[in-house]
Amino acid sequence: MNRSILLNCDMGESFGAWQMGDDSRVMPLIDQANLACGFHAGDPLTMQRTVALALQHGVQIGAHPAYPDLQGFGRRHLRCSAEEVEALLLYQLGALDAFCRAAGSQLAYVKPHGALYHDLLGDDRLLTAALSACARFRRGLPLMVLAQVDNARAQQLADAVGVPLLFEAFADRAYQPDGRLLPRSQASAVHAGEEQTIAQGLAIARGEPFADCNGQALQLTADSLCVHGDNPQALAVLRRLRALLDCT
Amino acid sequence: MNRSILLNCDMGESFGAWQMGDDSRVMPLIDQANLACGFHAGDPLTMQRTVALALQHGVQIGAHPAYPDLQGFGRRHLRCSAEEVEALLLYQLGALDAFCRAAGSQLAYVKPHGALYHDLLGDDRLLTAALSACARFRRGLPLMVLAQVDNARAQQLADAVGVPLLFEAFADRAYQPDGRLLPRSQASAVHAGEEQTIAQGLAIARGEPFADCNGQALQLTADSLCVHGDNPQALAVLRRLRALLDCT
Amino acid sequence: MNRSILLNCDMGESFGAWQMGDDSRVMPLIDQANLACGFHAGDPLTMQRTVALALQHGVQIGAHPAYPDLQGFGRRHLRCSAEEVEALLLYQLGALDAFCRAAGSQLAYVKPHGALYHDLLGDDRLLTAALSACARFRRGLPLMVLAQVDNARAQQLADAVGVPLLFEAFADRAYQPDGRLLPRSQASAVHAGEEQTIAQGLAIARGEPFADCNGQALQLTADSLCVHGDNPQALAVLRRLRALLDCT
Amino acid sequence: MNRSILLNCDMGESFGAWQMGDDSRVMPLIDQANLACGFHAGDPLTMQRTVALALQHGVQIGAHPAYPDLQGFGRRHLRCSAEEVEALLLYQLGALDAFCRAAGSQLAYVKPHGALYHDLLGDDRLLTAALSACARFRRGLPLMVLAQVDNARAQQLADAVGVPLLFEAFADRAYQPDGRLLPRSQASAVHAGEEQTIAQGLAIARGEPFADCNGQALQLTADSLCVHGDNPQALAVLRRLRALLDCT
Repeated sequence: MNRSILLNCDMGESFGAWQMGDDSRVMPLIDQANLACGFHAGDPLTMQRTVALALQHGVQIGAHPAYPDLQGFGRRHLRCSAEEVEALLLYQLGALDAFCRAAGSQLAYVKPHGALYHDLLGDDRLLTAALSACARFRRGLPLMVLAQVDNARAQQLADAVGVPLLFEAFADRAYQPDGRLLPRSQASAVHAGEEQTIAQGLAIARGEPFADCNGQALQLTADSLCVHGDNPQALAVLRRLRALLDCT
Repeated sequence: MNRSILLNCDMGESFGAWQMGDDSRVMPLIDQANLACGFHAGDPLTMQRTVALALQHGVQIGAHPAYPDLQGFGRRHLRCSAEEVEALLLYQLGALDAFCRAAGSQLAYVKPHGALYHDLLGDDRLLTAALSACARFRRGLPLMVLAQVDNARAQQLADAVGVPLLFEAFADRAYQPDGRLLPRSQASAVHAGEEQTIAQGLAIARGEPFADCNGQALQLTADSLCVHGDNPQALAVLRRLRALLDCT
Repeated sequence: MNRSILLNCDMGESFGAWQMGDDSRVMPLIDQANLACGFHAGDPLTMQRTVALALQHGVQIGAHPAYPDLQGFGRRHLRCSAEEVEALLLYQLGALDAFCRAAGSQLAYVKPHGALYHDLLGDDRLLTAALSACARFRRGLPLMVLAQVDNARAQQLADAVGVPLLFEAFADRAYQPDGRLLPRSQASAVHAGEEQTIAQGLAIARGEPFADCNGQALQLTADSLCVHGDNPQALAVLRRLRALLDCT
Repeated sequence: MNRSILLNCDMGESFGAWQMGDDSRVMPLIDQANLACGFHAGDPLTMQRTVALALQHGVQIGAHPAYPDLQGFGRRHLRCSAEEVEALLLYQLGALDAFCRAAGSQLAYVKPHGALYHDLLGDDRLLTAALSACARFRRGLPLMVLAQVDNARAQQLADAVGVPLLFEAFADRAYQPDGRLLPRSQASAVHAGEEQTIAQGLAIARGEPFADCNGQALQLTADSLCVHGDNPQALAVLRRLRALLDCT
């Protein structure tokens, strides 16, 4: 068992009068909270309150910056230049960090959201822009990316600017053989069964292989497991996973 | 002559494809640049470039945060709670400071913009919220407010949280007897003539009285003069004022 | 009993990934749906779907335009000129009507939302702007306003431009003696008890007096009752009210 | 000479305090004004004023709808579903048409803007969505698209829903052999010389061949020439082109 694997969850995704997620129930169960920064979700008051909630539970605060697309919740691909990506990341890192500073804390890491998260994986210029934003914002600030079978290229680019990478994996998503997620457009993209999610989460935590979307063995090395708690079933899975990881 | 009076100007007010102001010509002439933070003007790339321009000319960088109202350029009054004002200020301070940090610098002061600037003057709760945002963002970060005949109340609130105040005055605006600006809805709100602007600016710099809107003597103590450079005439006035202040 | 009193409800208030309200359960119970137009809530897809839902249930479609303030859900007062109010209303009326036209229907009335709704009551220039927007958009398009004890001034302004007024009252809100709503900042602004809401709703429907916030008799003449159905309790009240009005 | 070729220009692209273009000088010179609808440019007041200006000069009013991206001026590709594209088009058509209706007029055609304009050309689903929006908004409302060497596919899709197509060509842009524009990322994308622009414009107006980016003859059949007037040089070219077309 990789005793140090952490649980991370997207948080602070309410906006104004609209509520999303169940942050007060989820926060006590996780180690790392990815907080929306206002571009896809999260207004200033929501950010301030979610920072306070995270600190109350001793949870690391990560920035969860996105393309500027409230209407699409940051899930739509917006073709931006590398220069634009670096600038929109810096803007959002600073905005969230202000609430951390005001509460006597600071950002622990950066995990891009939605379409931006996925666009980084396939485009060296965009990944370099994201790494540069982290490096320029604060020496040593880590970037969280999707753990793949072969992480060499991402590691090479990160090493070039001295940015630590955090690799994350998913307990409830089906994987392609190369370690990419099966797109949500596929029917089997998200595990329907609770047991499969728990089993995959534990396998990843232990560094053991699990079945990809073709039923072949896939092994990923991850620092953090991304979990969800936005409905009663997801919350139940998260509680079981938390308990299993803690009691090992 | 108050040798230390500074010149400040609103800068970085372009947004995306829209240009505003003549930042490259104005920056060499001023001491303090009030940079838009994305809520009334200023997108991430514009902010990054304007920070670089300010640093190139050794100009102090001030945050120029506003109500969230791009369409109204932050000039429309938006009735917000004190809690909302504090949070929207922290958000914008952090966003702009990220570009300062990335360039090896930091925010020098905070000057709220437009309707928010004026709303602070008449509402202790909102002024307290703005002071709290400064204090929480960074110990010693000054807030710039309108110099009035009687600054006692503002000073008292600022002292309570340890925030330095910077008082600013206007060379080209007509004043009411209490030190408030004559509203722009009045025909004579902005001085038409170049000489009147220069004379008023020098009087303020020297701590000498000048004529208010009724022709009565008004004396203000100011740390900084707000100037404009957004058209050829304004730029000419700014150049003369800069030269007069420097050669004294 | 005013047999023709109608029930209206704010609908289509989701935005992108954020859900609000329980439109599919409420729509079969009401006569008039006030649909958000994108400025405080309601994205284009939500508007299209809510128009379809209303038409499916034979419910009149009203525009529910607001100040441009997604973050504040249109509840914050934004000081706009009369010219701005007229233009932002026309914009939103047209946007919603496009979905009506595409579905073979058209707007039945206009009910401004939130802070804009209340600002109209106290400002003849703004009310005139709203009436002008209705008149210019389509001859005979009615404007819905709060029924007050004395509606003479509103009626006079409406008659001047030939706009029909629809007066609405609230079953679940406490009233001031002049027919204004007790502000939500007051503890007793919203009736806690189901019975009080039902009783007040029936009194208004029958044109009978009910108790204002001081316990004095208040009588209002209304064309429509504004109801809510955004939680299980509100939905239960709405069902009872619907049944009581129908069986009379 | 195709005596009926028209001149169209993007207009109404100011937003709030930001001015763009020289609408009052350009409007008298053109036949068709493509008016921004608020998603990439154009606020309600700007839309209202530009509609009035167009009507004053007897210019046809076309909707110029875009992806929701003020910061990127609608020039960044935003991957939307066909359903989203149809809905965002309907929304913007309605919003602009409201100002036309209020002024006693109506939309004459639809020309999508920027990235959306180009995305339609290469994606049958998106083009079909745009055609459907036109057809549903008003029977017979034309869609303006880029004239290409082979327009068969676009014509087939348009015929299927009964939407007239208007083909436009560019006087000042270099073309690829298939009739696509040379991307702006290429140095020679925009003709530097006034004479080349005039010559290409006249050739298109006469239905005669002109040189593509490889120097080969290219012939396009167009209903309208897209022109620009946003700087003194562009305005001079536009005046010459107007005069040459009129005097033939």
